[in-house]
Amino acid sequence: MNDTELLVKGVLSAEKRMMAKALSRVENESPDSELILQKLFSHTGKAHRIGITGPPGAGKSTLTNNLIKVITGKGKKVGVIAVDPTSPFTGGALLGDRIRMQESGLLENVFIRSMATRGSLGGLCKNVVEACDVLDASGMDFVIIETVGVGQSELDIAQTADTVVVVLVPESGDAVQAMKAGLMEIADIFVLNKSEREGADAVAATIKNIIHLKPPSEDGWIINVLKTVGSRNEGSEELFQEIVKHMEHLEATGYLQTRRKRHLENKVIDMVNYRLRVNFWDKSRKEMLESRLDRMISKQEDPYSFVESITG
Amino acid sequence: MNDTELLVKGVLSAEKRMMAKALSRVENESPDSELILQKLFSHTGKAHRIGITGPPGAGKSTLTNNLIKVITGKGKKVGVIAVDPTSPFTGGALLGDRIRMQESGLLENVFIRSMATRGSLGGLCKNVVEACDVLDASGMDFVIIETVGVGQSELDIAQTADTVVVVLVPESGDAVQAMKAGLMEIADIFVLNKSEREGADAVAATIKNIIHLKPPSEDGWIINVLKTVGSRNEGSEELFQEIVKHMEHLEATGYLQTRRKRHLENKVIDMVNYRLRVNFWDKSRKEMLESRLDRMISKQEDPYSFVESITG
Repeated sequence: MNDTELLVKGVLSAEKRMMAKALSRVENESPDSELILQKLFSHTGKAHRIGITGPPGAGKSTLTNNLIKVITGKGKKVGVIAVDPTSPFTGGALLGDRIRMQESGLLENVFIRSMATRGSLGGLCKNVVEACDVLDASGMDFVIIETVGVGQSELDIAQTADTVVVVLVPESGDAVQAMKAGLMEIADIFVLNKSEREGADAVAATIKNIIHLKPPSEDGWIINVLKTVGSRNEGSEELFQEIVKHMEHLEATGYLQTRRKRHLENKVIDMVNYRLRVNFWDKSRKEMLESRLDRMISKQEDPYSFVESITG
Repeated sequence: MNDTELLVKGVLSAEKRMMAKALSRVENESPDSELILQKLFSHTGKAHRIGITGPPGAGKSTLTNNLIKVITGKGKKVGVIAVDPTSPFTGGALLGDRIRMQESGLLENVFIRSMATRGSLGGLCKNVVEACDVLDASGMDFVIIETVGVGQSELDIAQTADTVVVVLVPESGDAVQAMKAGLMEIADIFVLNKSEREGADAVAATIKNIIHLKPPSEDGWIINVLKTVGSRNEGSEELFQEIVKHMEHLEATGYLQTRRKRHLENKVIDMVNYRLRVNFWDKSRKEMLESRLDRMISKQEDPYSFVESITG
């Protein structure tokens, strides 16, 4: 067996060291990453993917931690991809918050991976989806994608999940800001975290009002607002039950396939666009661009004519 | 003169109605938008571009408002492109905060434009840069790009400016979160807003410590931390002076050209990649993808082989 085959075999038998290796290949866009993903593809589609998103400071990683405990407590396996730049998972070493990560990371049925948010050649979204595919193929029952709910790429990532959980906190204007940031449009479940704080009921009511203003979901799902206190692990079981309820609803109505088909379509388009870029920007084209920049800076040439000539 | 020529002429003579029209064409990626931008290109490069970024709630739009007053007070012209989904500029209608926008918007030498943050076909960054080009060509002395400092695309946008101002507030962990989000790496100037709040001095000291940990900037610029109280319009003049100081530093050292050359390179690459996508995804290729999705969903085919075959 060659190196790639060993990796694929290792992922399929859920060997953590091999999973970590495969994820690194995917994240670094190594030459064999596509081959690995291709071989894993037929083993994907079994895990339910949960997107957890919301503004910085909403307590997303604490909720993720709590969900991990609930899921593993039921004997199920869970993988986590954390792409939130403000998450202690992603920046654990910086915040000295690695203990929390370890606490979950040492559990048998858990695999946590953080992913860099910047400088991804192929697009962050593509790499995150591929990382989820690796965890999915390894036999995880659930894959959690934790991402900050501000920014275009980050919302796109959250939307690759089967169930999108939007986490807010009772702060004045938080619901309105979330609406403006596009969070309201992608939520399947709302969580009002830190709900022991003053004003929680008012914010929950505002969210409910905003939900009522939305056109009803095409699949007939009713969006709920759950209250949690992440730091005291309150409401995590209820959140998990609501996720399962949504999962069963998607399965019963056939909308799980509809949703996954749309996600797959986006994924294929991303892959094609990536390939187009890589094929195009060979050494000679990069050099040609480099040699013309000075002329453009001094307005002897305009970039539009250049683009026309190089792609025409 | 045809429609496009009239628009170009209107922008060059700073007619606000024509500027608004040209910006809409750019934002909507109308068929003639490239032609407009091409004709405007030789008139760009005169405005100094200021990126204002930071976490939601840091008071970026209040600072932007204050800067507008300072700049116009000196008889200079300023354009603003607001792409922050949490900004009252962008979401003005929602927050009922349009008064502030109007207050500045009615001034003679000001042009404010908000841009949608989602669903941009050609990439948000490309469209924002093009919008700035329109304002630049219209004879603005300064162009401010206001964007939220969370998310990959948003940081990329801030980085297209000549001078990047990162706004933070004295909240526990704000500096550390900013560092993790990549804000520390792109700042030319730090602003600690709401600096009348408790703990401001400690946060300012932390930021200074983090700055000292960074390798010195290649152009020899020393990053300063300024304190402001946006709501009381305190520190705005000092911020403007620091921006001018940075601008003069870039000009004196020749790094303004270096920086703009790098930005232009990124812009051309974005334009080419956009063209590659548009050229590739014609009707027949879209239909081919559509017809194969079901086979992929049922694992009879894998997306990697499909991508290989369609791009090979």
